[in-house]
Order: sequence, then C-alpha cells, then structure tokens
Amino acid sequence: MLLEAVYHRPKLNWCYAYDGRTIHLRIRTKRDDVTSVSAMAGDKYIWEESMEYIPMIKLVSDELFDYWECEVTPPYRRLKYGFLLEDGKEKYWMTEYDFLPEPPETPDRLFEYPFINPVDIFTVPAWVKDAVFYQIFPERFANGDPSLDPKGTLPWGGEPERDNFFGGDLQGVLDHLDHLSELGVNAIYFTPLFKATTNHKYDTEDYLTIDPQFGDMELLKKVVAACHERGIRVLLDAVFNHSGRTFAPFLDLREKGEQSRYKDWFHIRKFPIGVEDGVPSYDTFAFEPLMPKLNTENPEVKEYLLKVAEYWIKETDIDGWRLDVANEVDHQFWREFRQVVKQAKPDAYILGEIWHESSPWLQGDQFDAVMNYPFTNAALDFFVDGITDAEGFANAIGKQLSRYPRQANEVAFNLLDSHDTPRLLTKCKGNKDKMKLAAQFQFTFPGTPCIFYGDEVGLIGGQDPECRQCMQWDAAKQDQDLLAFYKDLIALRHQYGALRTGRLTFLSAEEGSTQLAYSREDENDKIVILMNNSAQEDTLSVDVEESSWTDIRTGQAAAARQGKLEVKLPAYGCAMLKADK
Amino acid sequence: MLLEAVYHRPKLNWCYAYDGRTIHLRIRTKRDDVTSVSAMAGDKYIWEESMEYIPMIKLVSDELFDYWECEVTPPYRRLKYGFLLEDGKEKYWMTEYDFLPEPPETPDRLFEYPFINPVDIFTVPAWVKDAVFYQIFPERFANGDPSLDPKGTLPWGGEPERDNFFGGDLQGVLDHLDHLSELGVNAIYFTPLFKATTNHKYDTEDYLTIDPQFGDMELLKKVVAACHERGIRVLLDAVFNHSGRTFAPFLDLREKGEQSRYKDWFHIRKFPIGVEDGVPSYDTFAFEPLMPKLNTENPEVKEYLLKVAEYWIKETDIDGWRLDVANEVDHQFWREFRQVVKQAKPDAYILGEIWHESSPWLQGDQFDAVMNYPFTNAALDFFVDGITDAEGFANAIGKQLSRYPRQANEVAFNLLDSHDTPRLLTKCKGNKDKMKLAAQFQFTFPGTPCIFYGDEVGLIGGQDPECRQCMQWDAAKQDQDLLAFYKDLIALRHQYGALRTGRLTFLSAEEGSTQLAYSREDENDKIVILMNNSAQEDTLSVDVEESSWTDIRTGQAAAARQGKLEVKLPAYGCAMLKADK
Repeated sequence: MLLEAVYHRPKLNWCYAYDGRTIHLRIRTKRDDVTSVSAMAGDKYIWEESMEYIPMIKLVSDELFDYWECEVTPPYRRLKYGFLLEDGKEKYWMTEYDFLPEPPETPDRLFEYPFINPVDIFTVPAWVKDAVFYQIFPERFANGDPSLDPKGTLPWGGEPERDNFFGGDLQGVLDHLDHLSELGVNAIYFTPLFKATTNHKYDTEDYLTIDPQFGDMELLKKVVAACHERGIRVLLDAVFNHSGRTFAPFLDLREKGEQSRYKDWFHIRKFPIGVEDGVPSYDTFAFEPLMPKLNTENPEVKEYLLKVAEYWIKETDIDGWRLDVANEVDHQFWREFRQVVKQAKPDAYILGEIWHESSPWLQGDQFDAVMNYPFTNAALDFFVDGITDAEGFANAIGKQLSRYPRQANEVAFNLLDSHDTPRLLTKCKGNKDKMKLAAQFQFTFPGTPCIFYGDEVGLIGGQDPECRQCMQWDAAKQDQDLLAFYKDLIALRHQYGALRTGRLTFLSAEEGSTQLAYSREDENDKIVILMNNSAQEDTLSVDVEESSWTDIRTGQAAAARQGKLEVKLPAYGCAMLKADK
Repeated sequence: MLLEAVYHRPKLNWCYAYDGRTIHLRIRTKRDDVTSVSAMAGDKYIWEESMEYIPMIKLVSDELFDYWECEVTPPYRRLKYGFLLEDGKEKYWMTEYDFLPEPPETPDRLFEYPFINPVDIFTVPAWVKDAVFYQIFPERFANGDPSLDPKGTLPWGGEPERDNFFGGDLQGVLDHLDHLSELGVNAIYFTPLFKATTNHKYDTEDYLTIDPQFGDMELLKKVVAACHERGIRVLLDAVFNHSGRTFAPFLDLREKGEQSRYKDWFHIRKFPIGVEDGVPSYDTFAFEPLMPKLNTENPEVKEYLLKVAEYWIKETDIDGWRLDVANEVDHQFWREFRQVVKQAKPDAYILGEIWHESSPWLQGDQFDAVMNYPFTNAALDFFVDGITDAEGFANAIGKQLSRYPRQANEVAFNLLDSHDTPRLLTKCKGNKDKMKLAAQFQFTFPGTPCIFYGDEVGLIGGQDPECRQCMQWDAAKQDQDLLAFYKDLIALRHQYGALRTGRLTFLSAEEGSTQLAYSREDENDKIVILMNNSAQEDTLSVDVEESSWTDIRTGQAAAARQGKLEVKLPAYGCAMLKADK
C-alpha cells in the first residue's frame, strides 16, 4: 500500500458537516491501490459502545488518486474517527499520528470533528441546484430605450471595441424576458449595472445608482419583479475590490492628496498619487489606474459597501451577488458580507469570481460558490481543444469534485465562456457539434450551468472585447437550430432531477479514447450519457445492470445485451438513456 | 519521483502571509526522494518580468515526507506560483492542475495567493515567544487566607480527591510571587477562578464573580498588578463551552422548563430535562449533567460571553484567555471573540484547549495557539515511555511543526503535563533524570513552555484528581535539586534568544537510537543540544562546521575534531554547546 499517497485532514473537503446531523468523511489513496476503506467512528466519551466501522465508497478518481467518502450521523453530534485501509495484502489503521498495523487501543490519537455547531454548517441556497443561469452583459443585450443612449452610441450590431457603446439597457431586458422564458432559464446574472464610465461598468462611480445608460432603480425593480413573476432569479455584480476612478472618494483623493478625508479608503503607496512606468502609486486591479483598490479593512469603507450589498437586496429584491475579483478582497470582509446578505435574504446566492482553487472561500463562512473556471478548462481541454483524452477529462473533473464539500459542488457555477473569455462557438472554430457536445456535458453535470447571452443563437467572438457582441434579435439571423438545441437541453435538465443532483459515476473514460460515458442517478432515475468526442461516427458500449432503456430525447427504446448497452453515435454525438423501471 | 507524495494546497500551512510583506510557501515530497525544490513565483499581471525561481530549503521531515519552505516578498502583495521539483533524474513543474515535464507557458493554471490583506494576516502576540508559563490550579497552590476556606476544608497537603477542598486562594498566589520570580517564569495560566461549586471550578456559576473561596475582583486586580510589576503576564481560563449546573439561566431552565426565557441558552433535546441511562436530555460536556453546553450561537449568550471576555481584560488587565473545550464551540463565536479580545488588548494571548490537529483554529481569525498535546505525546513517547526511538521522535516533532504556519509554532503552548494528565515525575516513575531530559527538550524548543505548578519541587500524582496535589511549601520537603535545575533551565532560555526563536535542525535522530542532537540557531548564536536518552552512559558525536564550542551551563570549552563534536554523557544526560564566535 502506498502510504505516501494517503491523505486526510480534519475539516475542509475531508471532514465536514453536510447538514445538522450528517458528517461527510473523505480520504485519498493511490489510484487503484486500496481495495477497501472504512471509517472507524464513534463518540469519544463512550468509545467502546459507540465505535463502528462504516464502509466508504469510491467517490471520484484523478490521475494519481482515488477519493473515498462516507456519511456518518453521530447521535451526539461529536465524532472521533480514523480509517481502516485494506488492499488484500496489508491492513492499516490511519490515526491523526500514524498508520498502525493494528487498531488503536484508545481513540485518543484519532482525528476529531468535535461538534456539529449549526452556525458553522456550510448551507447553500437550495434553488441554485435547480437553476439554469443566463449571463447578461447589459450594454450588449438589447436597446429598449434609445433615449438613454450615451453620446456616440453606435448602431446595434457593430464591431465591439474596448470603449464603444451600443445602448443596451434594462428596458431591453424587460422587453426580451419572453426569450429567456422560452429558452427555459430561471436565473440571470447581470454584469455591473451601477453608474460607471466604461461599457462594462466594472469601474463603479456610484454604487447606489443604476447607470443612467441602463435606466434607474425603479426600472430595475420592475425587471426583478417581472423576472420573479416568471420564476427567474436575479443576480447583480458587486465590484467591491476596486472602485472606478470617478468614484467620489477617489476624486476627492486625487484633488486633495494627503489632506483628503478619504485617503484611507484606498491603499496609497506614495503621495502625490500618479502613475510611473505603468505602475500606479496606489494599489489597483492589476495595474489599471482606472480601478483603485478599495481598503475593505477600513471600517468606513466596509460599512459603506455592506450597506450597498444590503440596499439592493432590500430595495429591489435581487437574489444574490456575483463578486468581482473576489479573491483579492480580505476574508474578514467577506465573512461580514455573508452575514449581512444572508440576514437580508436567507437564500441569496453568493458567487465569487475566483479562477483558481477556492477552498479558503468555500467553507461556509464566505461564498456559496465560485465561477467554476477549472470546470471550464477541463471541458475546453477535452471537448474543444482535444488536448486531453477521456481519461484525462474524467481525472480533471474528479479532481475538481474532490476539492470541495458536496454542497459547494451542488451549487458550483459551471460556465463554458463569459464576458472574460472567447465565446464557446469561437473556441470551437465554428463547429456547432463540438459546441453542443460541451454544452451537453455542462447541462448534465452537478452545479448550475450558465449560458453567456447569445451563445444560444450563435454569437461569436474572441477574447474581450470581441466576445461582447450585440445580441442578435433578428430571428432570420439567429441560429435557430442552436436555439432549439438549447431549449431542449434546458428542458431536459428541468425535467430530470437526476441530471441536476443525481450521483455522477464515470462508466467509460479510457486512456487515448474519445469515448465518454457516465451516469447520473437519484432515487427516481438512472440516466446514462454517452458521448462520442470525435470527428468520426463511433460505437460506444458500456456495462450496465439494467436491460431496458429509453432515449430521453427521442423516446426510442434501447436494449442492453449481455449486460452491455451499445450505441452508435455520429461525430460529436451524444445519447442520454434512461433505465426503464 | 513519487508524485503521489507531493502535496501543496493554497493557504493553511502551505501558503500563508507571515507578515505584511512576506509569504511563506511550503511543499511536501516523499522523504529523501527529491533533491531540489524551487518556487516559481511572480505577479500574474506582469508575469514575464516578475517571475523568478526561489530555492526552497528542507524545513523538517517525518516518517514519510520532507517538507520544504521558502519566503517570498511580492512587491505588489500578489503572488502566482508553482514549484519546480528535481531529483537528479526527473524534473517536474507542479501547477494547481498537474505535474508538467516542462515549464507552463502561462501562469494561468498556477497556484495563487491573491493579495496580502493585513487583516487576514495571522498575527500573534510577540511576548509569548519569550514567555515561560506556570500553570496554577488555584485550589491547590497556596492557602493565603483561611477565612475564605469553604466548609469542610481539609488540612493542606492531604490526598486530593474528586471533591475535596484545601483552601488555595488568590492571597496564596500573591504571597508566593517571589517563588515564581525566583523560578524565572514570566507568565501564569490560572485554571478557572470564577464562582463555581467544584474544586476545579470548570462548572461556572457566575462568570462575573471571583469564587469567594479564592477572593474577589479587587484581589485579582492586586494579583495582576503585582505580577505585571514583576514582568509576569496573567492568563485566565474561560469556560465558554458549558456552564455549571448552578448558573442562573440553567437554574431558571430547571425550574421553569419550556417556559424558561433561557431555554435557548442551551441545547435541549427533550423536555422535561433530566438524565436517562446516563445521558442528559440536553447537550453537555461529555455526558456530565453538571456541565450543560451553552448555545453560543444564540445572540444573547454570545453577547453575554463576549462581554465577560472583555470585562475581565478591562477590569483587571489580564493578558489573555485560555479557552476550555474550545474545539466544541462554534468557529463563528471564536472569530467574534478574537475581535473583542484583541480590541480590548491587542497583544492578548488566545490559547485554545484542543488536543487534536488544530489547523481550523490556527488561521489567524480565531486562536493564537493551542495546548500542544501532540508535542506532549511526542515527548512522552520518547523521553518517558521509550516507545519511540530518536528517529520516531524527530519525525513526530517534524510532523507537528509542518502542520501550522510558523507564527503558530512560535507561540505554541508546549506542556509536558497539566491538571488533566498525570504529573511528569509520576509518568517518569520517579526517575528525575528522565524528567529533566524531557524538560530540557521542552525548554529548548520553539513555542512557550509551561510548568505545571509544583513540578519544579517534585510533586507527584497520577491522572486527576491525583495530579492536583497541594503545592509543597516546606523547603525541607521540596526537591531542591529539581528546583535549582528548573531555575537554571529557565534562565538559560531567557538568556539565549536562539533557544526561543532560533531555527531548529535535527542533527542526529537515527533509527533505533537513543541519541538525539539538534541545533537552535539565530543571528546571534548557534547552540547544539545533545541528549542521551538511555539508562547508560553514552558518547554522542555530531558533524559540525565550527571547531570551537562552549558548554553554556558549565562554561567548559569543547573542541570539534575533524568536523566532529564528541560528547560523553551520563544516563539521560544532556549537553548544550554554543559555537564560539
């Protein structure tokens, strides 16, 4: 047994409360090395009577490791535990101190989850598990009120540039809610709406005002109310890491320098403030002088921003916040932010923009989820760029799922593109079949999928500003095939709980292969998804227990023969088969 | 290279800010597998210009792993990083995603420490690094005011039993401060002083009153002031996990049941409250009906206890809190507790009672340190019970040091016994030489050592209540040899900063061996400590660079010959040699 590969550590993704009664335990072993793992678990104050061995199941795997999991429900909410590892030849009891060849005599040196205190439980909003998100970049979605157009607004549909305007606004969103309802999405994430100078509005001038180009507070209220009537939730973008250069406190600082009463609202390295050799003398987002970093440790700033967070929830009834550059803001701020937001709306969704591993923010005291770019990378590597095989893809997904507590995975924000990346269809070099295959994975994966506005009608564009094209509203120019595809896909996800929250198991993901098969299974349904990620027709075969299956899109029956389900798929084809009852 | 052994994860003990400028990076590899590790680190917004390779040094090792560390000071407080691992044959670049045979082309998939925000930095009180603690169990230290003796108080020096009293009090402490000053300790940790029914006072009746058996608030003020005059800090014990059964809110609950306005102050599983088959119908410490668990999530309870925490600091100027059963209280409570305490006294020491791995509490937002029982276990296993060899001991210590950020290790509360364990001399079966050797390790190790009252004069006793003997004040009955030994040892620690905060390196810790040698080194001194942990005289030899050495206790010179320092030591002997300048 390769003991160097075995890993467990209290709390984090390894030992956490899933709810008020349940603790999940996880342990990592070398891939295909250990044949059986059990948790030895009990109450330390009545160890002899309470200790039991609980078998663990293999949750996921990656290149190097298997990850095992079990659930424990300690009656007095206290847990002392270790692990028993077996590989057919050797047996080890893993304690917090050692690997022992025999069971420890006392629980003293075992691991401990001391007490399930409800306030520490990582609790996520239930609706997100069932949500399909749609990301709107407001300047480019629809121009519903040309009277608000900023000076120099260009005709709709022109080439997007770093600093041009096309007049998209909230009235435009209101006018096109039917499109969203017909598409089937039930949540919108708006990039920033507050007053700012740029077209993307990530340089906030006034956190308490809707940009006049987009409308006003009353109009946002109307949009939110109209969305809620349709069962659509609304997320706004909070840019709290930095303000814009025209934010009043920063203007004051620029004017008065060290004498400004706002000098501690920012991080000034040197007065007078300025830019030398491309480096501002104050902390900023990247090295962008337009975006001075806010000092979120300053109680005044904190109070101001937390009031902003609360204000928009209370005034407009929005359903949560997406947090820009969330990783560069202090944890203490986000802890207080969570308390304010959840107090204002207990099921608000708090979504951080973090591109890298996000465990430090996903422990229950800060965010519910992050923009799941590691998911994006895994999907693009396999479905789009073809630089990983099926095995590599399953490994990347397995690694990703192993990193966070289950509740975090259940509300992960799974995107394939955004205003910060090239569009999916462009990444696919226009190959719609590839795009569809990636989307089918996204929509049959745990978490909440998000469509970047316009992907569903065939918008294209490279890295921003190109990806921020105007939405295509001319039905004749919309890709109707793609639109129909997304409608169907979204409907399927809404129809089958198993596709949203069912257990995920990879059935086929071999080295060098473009064949991928996995199942999603809950108490109602078991659905097997088979994918041919190649440019040629291919026949996939997976081992199954059930003999009788139905294609959930065509309704066609499929029979397993001798325990094998065989499906012929066109290039980049995908089948979703449900086991008959 | 055994990739399965390589471990790194952002934050925690693997990547943390040590101060406002410095980030420590650590990585784990299989023991003796990798010959060189560097961090590749830079600012992601100017990666090409800023990226550099920073060599890492081997910090510590344990049975299976080596742990490497380096310091990075990113000019803009942002860090993107990976690792380059080499073993002479293979080279791997470790990213957040993979091990690559070549350097990654972009920093996109590297690890990230997004920004050093001062409020998130784990900042510990500087004085603790230089402190020598003395633990006082007030009922058994000294009876200075017999007029306060509870009814039935027994003559000083009788057999300690679970529920007998000997009349120790605060006047007794005040009377014997000379003993502490002469001993050389500069910090006292008092087990609980607040009004309670038992002799140990862990069943608080009134959090705002000194137990009348011990004195009153005015007397405590006097004690603290007198201690401060002598340069002695004072730590009180906060029992916030549970109250006593006679705590007014619990009395009210017992009387009024579900009608009590305090019913949400506790965790009641079933009314009427009572005990059935040894299990109380409410949550308690262990299954002890005398100690009902407080509902620290209840805002009223939280406010009350946080006021208690602040009150004693403000009223009596104490220097911190030791937190009883700290692991069973919610994290949210401790986060607020830290804010309240540090606001009241910025360099207060917050010490949690946690016996198991404590990373979740040692991230800067909760405790400064925990009772370091894993240190205790490692020391007892080697020096006292002889169940590990020198290698096993060094491994246990290495594992322990690898688990926490450096600042946590610098203020770790290192004890060899306490009111909750058998006394050290008893564990040593009366063998004072063994006891002394263990103490010499304790006092030459990073962190703050603590002496359990009376150990220094030879008190004995097994598991409590036996270990809670009355202090021996009769000089004729005190072990004067032991007392002199402790005085010298404490003086040495005060004299040499290297013994307190110098870098620790094991020089000799072989399999099967009872010889242990290690060095402590800072910018002023390098001290080599050699230990013969056996019942026979033995000669130790270690490789050194310096040729000329001096015994820091005897002043005797010692010369290294051909790069070897050789020392003959009696059974359980120890030498401390300082390299001459």
